[in-house]
Amino acid sequence: MTTNPTAAPGTEPGHAPSPAPPVSPEQAAIEQALTDQVVASFAGAPDPRLRYLMEALTRHLHAFIREVRLTEDEWNTGIEFLTAAGHITDDRRQEFILLSDVLGASMQTIAVNNEAVPGAAHPATEATVFGPFFVNDAPEIPSGGDIAGGAHGQPCWVEGTVTDTDGNPVPGARIEVWEADDEGFYDVQYTDGRVAGRAHLFSDSEGKYAFWGLTPTPYPIPHDGPVGKMLAATGRSPVRASHLHFMVTAPGQRTLVTHIFVNGDPQIEIGDSVFGVKDSLIKDFHHQPAGTPTPDGRTLDTGWARTTFNIVLAPADA
Amino acid sequence: MTTNPTAAPGTEPGHAPSPAPPVSPEQAAIEQALTDQVVASFAGAPDPRLRYLMEALTRHLHAFIREVRLTEDEWNTGIEFLTAAGHITDDRRQEFILLSDVLGASMQTIAVNNEAVPGAAHPATEATVFGPFFVNDAPEIPSGGDIAGGAHGQPCWVEGTVTDTDGNPVPGARIEVWEADDEGFYDVQYTDGRVAGRAHLFSDSEGKYAFWGLTPTPYPIPHDGPVGKMLAATGRSPVRASHLHFMVTAPGQRTLVTHIFVNGDPQIEIGDSVFGVKDSLIKDFHHQPAGTPTPDGRTLDTGWARTTFNIVLAPADA
Repeated sequence: MTTNPTAAPGTEPGHAPSPAPPVSPEQAAIEQALTDQVVASFAGAPDPRLRYLMEALTRHLHAFIREVRLTEDEWNTGIEFLTAAGHITDDRRQEFILLSDVLGASMQTIAVNNEAVPGAAHPATEATVFGPFFVNDAPEIPSGGDIAGGAHGQPCWVEGTVTDTDGNPVPGARIEVWEADDEGFYDVQYTDGRVAGRAHLFSDSEGKYAFWGLTPTPYPIPHDGPVGKMLAATGRSPVRASHLHFMVTAPGQRTLVTHIFVNGDPQIEIGDSVFGVKDSLIKDFHHQPAGTPTPDGRTLDTGWARTTFNIVLAPADA
Repeated sequence: MTTNPTAAPGTEPGHAPSPAPPVSPEQAAIEQALTDQVVASFAGAPDPRLRYLMEALTRHLHAFIREVRLTEDEWNTGIEFLTAAGHITDDRRQEFILLSDVLGASMQTIAVNNEAVPGAAHPATEATVFGPFFVNDAPEIPSGGDIAGGAHGQPCWVEGTVTDTDGNPVPGARIEVWEADDEGFYDVQYTDGRVAGRAHLFSDSEGKYAFWGLTPTPYPIPHDGPVGKMLAATGRSPVRASHLHFMVTAPGQRTLVTHIFVNGDPQIEIGDSVFGVKDSLIKDFHHQPAGTPTPDGRTLDTGWARTTFNIVLAPADA
């Protein structure tokens, strides 16, 4: 077994003590026999991967219940939590993704599926959470175009290159970008159905890209549901560090889902509510006073920002 | 740590092999650091028990993801499964309890909360799953009364005693009983809202009780939802072994939630879909031909059955 659910919990530094007393060997045997019986029930599954997943899920779920000595009231609370999460979830709200995000399960899944490529000349850009706010069919913009579509916020010029791990430019990479406005809302959270703060563009023949977006600002994940209640009960902030989403696809390259974060955002220190921050994804956003000529030869009557994000794609077979 | 998520899975006898290759020490360190970061996010929880539960949930959830090398498609399938379970759940259907039941999580919680009482002169009756079909305020019947209320099935005389672990009778114990009809439906699954196949009664001054119920028959748990699809995909039967539910409460005694099962029911061998069967709860149901005088001095024009279930309650402070 990879777990030892009868080990005394709470003995690790930094862990709150468990009120659970140790159990007798007879009791432990009863509990282990039940786990074994449930694991054995999947022995006839035709798909070996599904069989393995259900066996492992059973082992880890039972190990949790046994380790914490889950009370029947706590079990009931769990059932009620899942029920409430199911009932608040609809086409525009996905509480189970939020739950996965705030438990770090989304980031752990991303870590498992985006292993570092050993021996690469240029390390691939790190991935982070996808989040619930991507939509297909965002409008195409030309290089240097504007994704805001009327979303409010400080203009931000974003430019960079797309290359592979050998340093070769990747022309024609499809770059999806999406972000919240300066009040922390994505367009899918607006009530009028308009598309704003999202677009896609393509890297040019030299692998270069550029667009106008908005300087990212911090915002809370939706926290009026059961996940928000759990965060409040455990003293955690629902706020995400300021970020701008990217998804980059190109033939022969591993799809990259990531963000860039704003260097100096205090929420990075407080803690991103979904554990998405990686040091390599924190970028300097340089403030430009109103009147500073823009890279595309204009003069804005507001301040703006600029940042550079050079993207390195891992090979698809890595 | 009580888990070792980087141990090679699939090496235990009887477990399907995992397709996952081992990970590098660098990758394992990245994954462990993420788990540690999420665990640390709960350090400020004011309630130490809640803090401990969330830390342990995080550790076991991450250990599962890391051990199986969960793919992003599998993660998506999990989100879709939970969403579908939430959407089919309403006042009359509880898919999350079914899920807990078929994963043995309900029975494991019961095992954890009903530890054997060491040194008892008479061992307490074993507990089993509560199930989703109990309702409050079932009608009261006198001793020897009938719970059927029009539900169809073979009449069955059930009698026994309620005693404590010292062998003393427990008078005035409240005995809730409920069961499915011979088509496998509980009254809450009827469309007409009537109450049938459930009642409560009290043990008499000598701790004795008796009632007319129905001889239990096997039936599937509701399997037209995501839990049923999972059972089908893994080759598992949705059928429950034939059973009659009891919940027994008395002052100073631990509440007992249990079933009795029918000796000889082939589903006991095939496997109860929620892992509720305990050997001590399998009872002989003795068939009585039509015309056999009943214990309450009547003659029925159909065959009937009789069984005995002597209930031993553990002390409340055990």
